[in-house]
Amino acid sequence: MLHYEDFSEGQIFDLGSYYVSAEEIVAFAREFDPQPFHLNEEAGRNSVLGGLAASGWHSCSILMRMMADAYLNRSAGMGSSGLDEVKWLRPVLAGETLSGAMEVLSKRVSSKRPEMGILKCRWQLRNAQGEAKLDQVGVNFIRVRAP
Amino acid sequence: MLHYEDFSEGQIFDLGSYYVSAEEIVAFAREFDPQPFHLNEEAGRNSVLGGLAASGWHSCSILMRMMADAYLNRSAGMGSSGLDEVKWLRPVLAGETLSGAMEVLSKRVSSKRPEMGILKCRWQLRNAQGEAKLDQVGVNFIRVRAP
Repeated sequence: MLHYEDFSEGQIFDLGSYYVSAEEIVAFAREFDPQPFHLNEEAGRNSVLGGLAASGWHSCSILMRMMADAYLNRSAGMGSSGLDEVKWLRPVLAGETLSGAMEVLSKRVSSKRPEMGILKCRWQLRNAQGEAKLDQVGVNFIRVRAP
Repeated sequence: MLHYEDFSEGQIFDLGSYYVSAEEIVAFAREFDPQPFHLNEEAGRNSVLGGLAASGWHSCSILMRMMADAYLNRSAGMGSSGLDEVKWLRPVLAGETLSGAMEVLSKRVSSKRPEMGILKCRWQLRNAQGEAKLDQVGVNFIRVRAP
């Protein structure tokens, strides 16, 4: 298992790639974000988003899944207190393949809980042309191997 | 339909209430955030979260659904560019009933797009005891009725 000691400032993790289907965009939107441009191709084309576009929360959830598969599921993770920013820079459209990356911006051990490390990270989703779609900065708590 | 002109600074919207079941916590986690404390009651109890706890992205998605039902689905919404902060203040546990609220912090018309209004808002989820679970500050774009 990866622990706090295994992460270093400036380190970049490849989070792999993910194909976004029209079906899953609509399924997520029906459950959580039933706005027309997330539910219907034509409504999407006629909106500022320019096509059937994933809910921003769906994009965040996809990125979460990519994080889990790439490193969190083999890490001694302890959750998160939140994010300093979430930027939906460009719409995530049906049929796109996204790639993800994480950068460790800084790290420190909690002063109250010496068994808990705090990683400040940037996570991004980009399209095949390398354009950023989603940009997040926030924290991950992770267990210290040898407190 | 509600337009930009129908929102005013300081206005507070009640977003209703939402019961969070263990089944939906596990279903969301299996798809998007398969960490042990989101998948399994015992793993949750043994974690810092203290019980089977919803993924933070699940909490955000629940709040999104409450927003859609309370006002967005009768608003001329144009999406969002993101959030300035997302704070997961306390774990959302299975069996809790949450209440939601939105406050309009400020409003202005886009300088580039006079047909688009920009609402800066705070959205919160609280438990039955009134403790804040999730706190978000971000923007909603909404059409101007008479640009």
